Amino acid sequence: MTTPKTKAKDLAQAIVKRDRRALARAITLVESERADHREEADALLAKLSEHSGNALRIGLSGTPGVGKSTFIEAFGMMLTAQDLRVAVLAVDPSSARSGGSILGDKTRMEHLVREPNAFIRPSPSKTQMGGVAQRTRDVMHLCEAAQFDVILIETVGVGQSETQVAQLCDVFLLLMAPAGGDELQGVKRGIMEMADMILVNKADGDLKPAAMRTCSDYAGAVRLLRRRPQDPDNFPKAVTVSATTGLGLEAAWEDIKSLFAWRKDQGHLDPMRRAQERYWLHETVRSMLLSRLQTPSAQAKLTQLEEAIKTGEISSAQAARHMVEFLHHTDAVK
Amino acid sequence: MTTPKTKAKDLAQAIVKRDRRALARAITLVESERADHREEADALLAKLSEHSGNALRIGLSGTPGVGKSTFIEAFGMMLTAQDLRVAVLAVDPSSARSGGSILGDKTRMEHLVREPNAFIRPSPSKTQMGGVAQRTRDVMHLCEAAQFDVILIETVGVGQSETQVAQLCDVFLLLMAPAGGDELQGVKRGIMEMADMILVNKADGDLKPAAMRTCSDYAGAVRLLRRRPQDPDNFPKAVTVSATTGLGLEAAWEDIKSLFAWRKDQGHLDPMRRAQERYWLHETVRSMLLSRLQTPSAQAKLTQLEEAIKTGEISSAQAARHMVEFLHHTDAVK
Repeated sequence: MTTPKTKAKDLAQAIVKRDRRALARAITLVESERADHREEADALLAKLSEHSGNALRIGLSGTPGVGKSTFIEAFGMMLTAQDLRVAVLAVDPSSARSGGSILGDKTRMEHLVREPNAFIRPSPSKTQMGGVAQRTRDVMHLCEAAQFDVILIETVGVGQSETQVAQLCDVFLLLMAPAGGDELQGVKRGIMEMADMILVNKADGDLKPAAMRTCSDYAGAVRLLRRRPQDPDNFPKAVTVSATTGLGLEAAWEDIKSLFAWRKDQGHLDPMRRAQERYWLHETVRSMLLSRLQTPSAQAKLTQLEEAIKTGEISSAQAARHMVEFLHHTDAVK
Repeated sequence: MTTPKTKAKDLAQAIVKRDRRALARAITLVESERADHREEADALLAKLSEHSGNALRIGLSGTPGVGKSTFIEAFGMMLTAQDLRVAVLAVDPSSARSGGSILGDKTRMEHLVREPNAFIRPSPSKTQMGGVAQRTRDVMHLCEAAQFDVILIETVGVGQSETQVAQLCDVFLLLMAPAGGDELQGVKRGIMEMADMILVNKADGDLKPAAMRTCSDYAGAVRLLRRRPQDPDNFPKAVTVSATTGLGLEAAWEDIKSLFAWRKDQGHLDPMRRAQERYWLHETVRSMLLSRLQTPSAQAKLTQLEEAIKTGEISSAQAARHMVEFLHHTDAVK
């Protein structure tokens, strides 16, 4: 008889041996909403935990149009040419509706997608069991167990997702387009504060002067930010790159490696990752608590209370209390 | 003996008679975190519910530097000059840390603050019992019971707070500064979609041409948005104003009134407000569920689980489940 435990054992062994089909199967498992799959996934992740944590985790954010796909293609090809194994993952908060728009179109990375040392996985869609980023975190651990050297986690510059990706990675990159001086103000301060490096892309052709200017503006801006303990002297920094000509990609990779090495040597990496563990524990508990609102019986109760508010039978404060009591009662019965 | 009920009755009567000190006391009550105050506040709000709902509720958002305080001062003075009673409230999501930065400096509205027909109230600070906007909603209902004709709710253009203010008001205004064409892209589409009117401020002196140009850019942009059922033919719209010279303020007020009247006449206002009730019911239930994480015993348990994750004793998925079980158990004991 195959129990979740024995299945997990076989799958875990195959993953550690870099079996891509096993990895893909495991990812499908951790992204599933079925309770039995969830149980298998947990067993698998527990089994693999000793094999994860060895990759350099890079986060990459940037608004649509800055050239993220082209950058990832060029950056990823450069890494695989150095015999590094690269996994590209995505956190797309809108994937609930669109079914995963980021990395959905793999044709935009036509070379990387055919690289045996690269693994590209689109954003999981939103599940009832927690957010997109929670699942991506599980997938990251699976990829680490499968011996990938670099995990590149992409997101778009909207809302919560940047904070979440910053909580998944060791080095956080912000990819920007060249712009007029005015637009500098448009970058949210919070995002700037999370970035370890700002990469101004499209430093090629006609846009090169604008890219240089934008880069120096950002360099000035990040110098004004308060330094965190995990920032060495020359970080955060702003540099120019061109995903199409390859300019600056090698230098950026050297910067990323030296920042990572410094953080490791100075004893910052472990505390950073532990703080991230804490963040995700809290996030997971929050989403588990809120998931109780998504059950059919909870939804039916809410609709009923909304009716009662509409007719003036109860106030919305009373309705909220009724709802919370209803959820407690449902739990107690279970 | 004074019970919450009798106290609430006296206070309610004074508020309906426009007693400003009673209103201030009631606001302190609804902003309090004490359980007994909360009970009094609920009794009071229930008692006043038949008196609320008669004001025109205006939401106003804009990033720092666009001239929100100056606009509110000028707009508010114009309304009070028309014998309208105006309450100015604020939703400041950062008030947890800063103690309420918006409207905190009342000196920036030196005339309005001395107007007998105006009432200015800074943002409540974040409470355990729910978010800043929930409390502002209660305060809005109190002000309506105190017979204010216009409620103006201000927020800054960051994160969640704009969505929340849009869920508090009948007409949502976005105040913008004149800018180069490039900056147009910086406005988040989601915020643009919530706005009924975009007011381009500082249409005076040297900035007038830029303001006109920016306004026509926004006018073009909002024309591309999908119309909602609650939008008449000429809305959403973009107009220029100057808070310092007063240009366009009368016209903007006429627009606001005509939009409000149209929505009322066409039967859109009630469904809009009912949908908002629903939004706040869900929000309140969510924050009540999450508030259980803030108790000292829950925090102690979390710390203990974090330790166990750190030593590798349990996985974070297991820790999350333990935590949720702990909360259920705590509830059951209560």
